[in-house]
Amino acid sequence: MAAIDTALVVPSSPTPSSSSSPVILTQDELKKIAAYKAVEYVESGMVLGLGTGSTAKHAVARIGELLKQGKLENIIGIPTSKMTQEQAVSVGIPLSDLDSHPIVDLAIDGADEVDPDLNLVKGRGGSLLREKMIEGACKKFIVIVDETKQVKYLGGSGLAVPVEIVPFCWKFTASRLQKMFEDSGCEAKLRTSGENEKPFVTDNGNYIVDLYFKRSIGDLKAASDAILRLAGVAEHGMFLDMATTVIVAGELGVTVKNKKI
Amino acid sequence: MAAIDTALVVPSSPTPSSSSSPVILTQDELKKIAAYKAVEYVESGMVLGLGTGSTAKHAVARIGELLKQGKLENIIGIPTSKMTQEQAVSVGIPLSDLDSHPIVDLAIDGADEVDPDLNLVKGRGGSLLREKMIEGACKKFIVIVDETKQVKYLGGSGLAVPVEIVPFCWKFTASRLQKMFEDSGCEAKLRTSGENEKPFVTDNGNYIVDLYFKRSIGDLKAASDAILRLAGVAEHGMFLDMATTVIVAGELGVTVKNKKI
Repeated sequence: MAAIDTALVVPSSPTPSSSSSPVILTQDELKKIAAYKAVEYVESGMVLGLGTGSTAKHAVARIGELLKQGKLENIIGIPTSKMTQEQAVSVGIPLSDLDSHPIVDLAIDGADEVDPDLNLVKGRGGSLLREKMIEGACKKFIVIVDETKQVKYLGGSGLAVPVEIVPFCWKFTASRLQKMFEDSGCEAKLRTSGENEKPFVTDNGNYIVDLYFKRSIGDLKAASDAILRLAGVAEHGMFLDMATTVIVAGELGVTVKNKKI
Repeated sequence: MAAIDTALVVPSSPTPSSSSSPVILTQDELKKIAAYKAVEYVESGMVLGLGTGSTAKHAVARIGELLKQGKLENIIGIPTSKMTQEQAVSVGIPLSDLDSHPIVDLAIDGADEVDPDLNLVKGRGGSLLREKMIEGACKKFIVIVDETKQVKYLGGSGLAVPVEIVPFCWKFTASRLQKMFEDSGCEAKLRTSGENEKPFVTDNGNYIVDLYFKRSIGDLKAASDAILRLAGVAEHGMFLDMATTVIVAGELGVTVKNKKI
């Protein structure tokens, strides 16, 4: 296990009550608390990776708010999806891309799962490849989650580990992925969207195969390399050794976990 | 070095001369000789991976010829590109794909470079990803080349090692690839096509970055994994430990190299 500093830093309720009865917060409120805490790390002049999804959107909104208030200046955002690009434009964050700004100071994004070593599963929102490109180019990568996203091992939530694959002979690639992890009880399913269950298509024109595991897949780096070696795979949703800070919002407060470098 | 059996099996001239003066063969004639030799391995009832390029097209034509003559029957071809698909249809080879035929008996394809361990560079024709999917699913993979394709180390011909990447932020990916191999004097260039030098687009909608090396890149498996770990890379043109037989046609004859299993 990697060395992790953990600190419970603030009470999670946005409106601390003087009574002893706990305030019940919704999952979305917890996400917002984590997002606001992460934006405290943003400084004027930074190039920022802007994440995608229901948690990251709170961070993007908050950054726009601070820009409007003049509390932040000269921010350049690099959006990880078309959806985030639209939101960032709507809240007034100036945008660029990795070609123009290959070094990113800080990225803030949500995750679908976080393990005790701060390894992540991402990409249930479908933009894992762009997220991995941008977040892999960051000096600091802050992950924001509510406490339900914490797992003992990746895949442990029973939800999917997504793999982005080229559409050409996708059934073949899906069956090879399932076979690769048969010892972990893997089931590979093509992600579909809409009523007619057409394949979901990523921003890069690829498909997503979701891998469901009954048991831990063991050595994550070995699993990652094995998946990437499979011709037909473009990228997968395991983000190993990338997060530098994870902010977890729970009923009992916000926990900040820092990877020791 | 892997164990390789090498045998000089036949004189390379298609029309052996009784005179002692050597027949000068063109490069295309040498390619044809290698292709015809490879097709001798094809048996009726096989599922065949059909390669792409100027050497493989001779094999596809020859298979069509033998089907017409009734010397081969019940062949199913899996084409590695749209171009080969068209040729195979035109010469009467029944076609399928990996989804329907996930196990391929034999593939025959050319290569841009072959090293002494039968590792290959492929994909200067641009269809490396489909080739790797199909040829990775083969029980036997016969590579056919003229003698100019033999190199001491991959990249050693001074021509490119291609990498297929997603178009999103391609400059960023290209510069990371160049940086990754700076010790080998790597130069990364986007492949273009046509007069207006637009990016070349693969069958999968991706771009190709060609890597030129001044020196050997050393450990090929480590290089392969490093390239594949880069988010934005879909596949690369190094085919390591995949060829089971390499047929080399040269002025002095045809050499068959078999990998010992």
